[in-house]
Amino acid sequence: MAAVGGAELEVAVKTQAERVRQLKAEKAAQDKITEEVRKLLELKAQLGSNDGKHQFVLKTAKGTRDYNPKQMAIREKAFSAIINCFKRHGAETIDTPVFELKETLTGKYGEDSKLIYDLKDQGGELLSLRYDLTVPFARYLSMNKITNIKRYHIAKVYRRDNPAMTRGRYREFYQCDFDIAGQYDPMIPDAECLKIVHEILSDLKLGDFCIKVNDRRILDGMFEVCGVPDDKFRTICSSVDKLDKLPWEDVKNEMVGEKGLAPESADKIGTYVQLNGGAELIEKLLNDISLCQSKVALEGLNDLKLLFQYLTLFGVGEQVSTFDLSLARGLDYYTGVIYEAVLGPSQGAAPTQQEEHTETSSVGSVAAGGRYDNLVGMFDSKGRKVPCVGVSIGMERIFSILEQQVEGTEQKIRTTETQVLVAAAQKKLLEERMKLVAELWNSGIKAEITYKKNPKLLNQLQYCEETGIPLVAILGEQELKDGVVKLRDVVTREEVDILRVNLAEQIKKRTGQP
Amino acid sequence: MAAVGGAELEVAVKTQAERVRQLKAEKAAQDKITEEVRKLLELKAQLGSNDGKHQFVLKTAKGTRDYNPKQMAIREKAFSAIINCFKRHGAETIDTPVFELKETLTGKYGEDSKLIYDLKDQGGELLSLRYDLTVPFARYLSMNKITNIKRYHIAKVYRRDNPAMTRGRYREFYQCDFDIAGQYDPMIPDAECLKIVHEILSDLKLGDFCIKVNDRRILDGMFEVCGVPDDKFRTICSSVDKLDKLPWEDVKNEMVGEKGLAPESADKIGTYVQLNGGAELIEKLLNDISLCQSKVALEGLNDLKLLFQYLTLFGVGEQVSTFDLSLARGLDYYTGVIYEAVLGPSQGAAPTQQEEHTETSSVGSVAAGGRYDNLVGMFDSKGRKVPCVGVSIGMERIFSILEQQVEGTEQKIRTTETQVLVAAAQKKLLEERMKLVAELWNSGIKAEITYKKNPKLLNQLQYCEETGIPLVAILGEQELKDGVVKLRDVVTREEVDILRVNLAEQIKKRTGQP
Repeated sequence: MAAVGGAELEVAVKTQAERVRQLKAEKAAQDKITEEVRKLLELKAQLGSNDGKHQFVLKTAKGTRDYNPKQMAIREKAFSAIINCFKRHGAETIDTPVFELKETLTGKYGEDSKLIYDLKDQGGELLSLRYDLTVPFARYLSMNKITNIKRYHIAKVYRRDNPAMTRGRYREFYQCDFDIAGQYDPMIPDAECLKIVHEILSDLKLGDFCIKVNDRRILDGMFEVCGVPDDKFRTICSSVDKLDKLPWEDVKNEMVGEKGLAPESADKIGTYVQLNGGAELIEKLLNDISLCQSKVALEGLNDLKLLFQYLTLFGVGEQVSTFDLSLARGLDYYTGVIYEAVLGPSQGAAPTQQEEHTETSSVGSVAAGGRYDNLVGMFDSKGRKVPCVGVSIGMERIFSILEQQVEGTEQKIRTTETQVLVAAAQKKLLEERMKLVAELWNSGIKAEITYKKNPKLLNQLQYCEETGIPLVAILGEQELKDGVVKLRDVVTREEVDILRVNLAEQIKKRTGQP
Repeated sequence: MAAVGGAELEVAVKTQAERVRQLKAEKAAQDKITEEVRKLLELKAQLGSNDGKHQFVLKTAKGTRDYNPKQMAIREKAFSAIINCFKRHGAETIDTPVFELKETLTGKYGEDSKLIYDLKDQGGELLSLRYDLTVPFARYLSMNKITNIKRYHIAKVYRRDNPAMTRGRYREFYQCDFDIAGQYDPMIPDAECLKIVHEILSDLKLGDFCIKVNDRRILDGMFEVCGVPDDKFRTICSSVDKLDKLPWEDVKNEMVGEKGLAPESADKIGTYVQLNGGAELIEKLLNDISLCQSKVALEGLNDLKLLFQYLTLFGVGEQVSTFDLSLARGLDYYTGVIYEAVLGPSQGAAPTQQEEHTETSSVGSVAAGGRYDNLVGMFDSKGRKVPCVGVSIGMERIFSILEQQVEGTEQKIRTTETQVLVAAAQKKLLEERMKLVAELWNSGIKAEITYKKNPKLLNQLQYCEETGIPLVAILGEQELKDGVVKLRDVVTREEVDILRVNLAEQIKKRTGQP
């Protein structure tokens, strides 16, 4: 909006009172219209209600899913591997609310901001669901004046994106974030983030993967030397980001056609973004006189060189990590090194651009992150910065793959950990079963009874077979008299009488509980 | 709305087309007004912007909180105790999305529905944040046609209530739910839910507590015999529910003054709702000829009698569980037994009504639940029912208490599990530290390095003391030559040279890792 000058302002203020009066009259007319519309809608609803009852649809919200117990068992196992890795690297954990003040998220996500879920204004603050865990983390650091922390955070985030649920793309999905905040020597925390990605993807046994690495500064320098105007950096960068889904020709058309970039500039960018390789590519670009005219590109290249050295020391070799100039990452807040892990065969054999597209779009990225040195400063009234670097593991695609793996092998997954079912061989023993199962619970044994007064023994044994309970503690009149319990192994069907006082201990022994 | 008759309907259809034309003209006028309003608001914004910049407020949304690492350590410990209990009772776990279709939540919460958070209509479905885990559970059962399950679910729920954060009342809070769905013999699953509350509150060492028990059918029967009209049952019930916060006189005034109940009816209710006790009170009421005229009250009393028998078998005695006729529970969906656990000294010594109020309002309920046999049927097109009973542990109040306990004892809580810091005694050993720490990570050791190129040994040792890391693996030129690492115990300051190949094993041994 154009600025309003002093004289204009005075006129504006005078006319405002007049307009308020005018508005009141118009408001009355508007109210009348609103009332008419209401009547009409009411009538329509009345007419419609003769056609049949409103059909309630039984479903979860678009782009979301439930997890059943079997899926939860797989999920918990994956989380456990990831948390173990984060703890192995000495991380603490924090939690933040699922919604933030809308303002907190404003201006952090560039073109993706349109995907933010807003809450309805029900009076009070304007709120939005978190879009990632990074902005809430930065808000947390600034609010608590924390300048040093290594933390993980596992929680759901929300994006009103087009869901593709068969490929594990949801509107509600888990992110597992690991971030290091603090002023440190270059590339040491950055290398650890990539080491973590390497460990987690290896631990989860998802097959081959590749970690693409680039640096925002190299992209900015490249745009500079290719003649992209300053104010077009971000939008051209988001075009480059589409190279994992579109061929270069389409991306070039977008740059030139839609975004008005000079074709020569686009062609120059084209020669760069099709490059990928290892340490030798960094050396090559360090000798690229044109690119190295850019101070930021030179900084980025030197830092990447150091990063690759550190990765080698960490045992993350060039067969899994690739310098890829087409990697751009959409989010606005990155300032330095950026990376993204994709599943699929290693691209060490220099595939054609076309092949690479096919692979990437069929599996998609499972982890991504980078350095964001200015984000915390955006929340500080004095702009005090806290340099940060981090990585986010996207869980939903990983779950899809793990689920498929389980289905493929037909391995049976237990969804409970029950060690023993307390059963009765005769009728009228409900009270005795209740007493015994309470004794076992109080001894720390995982135990169940069936909720029938007089269940058949066969049904009780079947329940164990269905749910994988390994032991049955059987009570009968005789056992009660003798002060023993018959302990049955469900698989071998062996039965042995055990003194009731020793039962808990025996169950622990047989189920390997410490 | 009154029904529209046949002839009226024809007229209505004919006039509708005419009204649509009329509406179009009015719509044009409306658009003009909207445009004028927009201009005026724009002008106002311009004038306002001259007064100074909008002040960004750095905070979490009202009624929500972050958890810092220390608070997370306490929280994780509490969750772990609760999950252990749920698993001990053979429960599976599921997860559902944080929001549901708005329709799914409609008509389930009675007067509390106004506290539901709605999402903004951004095109597409109308959504609301979940208000509890029970309605999503019922939706899940119906959607998947599940008739038998014992599951737990730990997740955050959302209520636009008045927050009282010092007492642990938030708008975003965790619930830990355990529910048993299925057609079983009476009171067996119900008794297990109460046993679980007893185990969890004991395990968490929160001090004395009391579980109040009642039955919706007894309340309904009581209203019936006290002469409450059928259509006033729910609203009078929600008055009774306020007895934990207000004295009887205020509640009576609400019933008579606001809700138009006959004073004699209110007085009769008054004699009942001030009763509480154990098995003997049940017997007394079973002999109350007036109350037992109600068939539902009689059913409720007989079931409660059975429940108290089962609770005795489970070792949940009358010193912790009390039949309390003033317990009403606000939610609409309960159909049978209801219960609520409150912290504070046992009320076995029959305190006066006044004392009870003071205690209850100062600590508040930490667990609550009951039987809801009709909720799943509300989602089924044929109304097929799945009887359910469950309990929900409210975590935020429990966290507040556990936090206070920790602060009181000044015990130091570790927020990481790091076993060893890889340190250097001399400069220029960053690369060697990186190699060694990677070796340890790959052996499953929780290890860290500091992110400085040349950190001082003193600073590295201080870091261990601050964060509670028990061991330091120190590298120096001599150690590298000899193929050893100096392992230092942070507390005793003892140092011993260990062959590098044996280091991981030695660290595991010294930190008790299996």
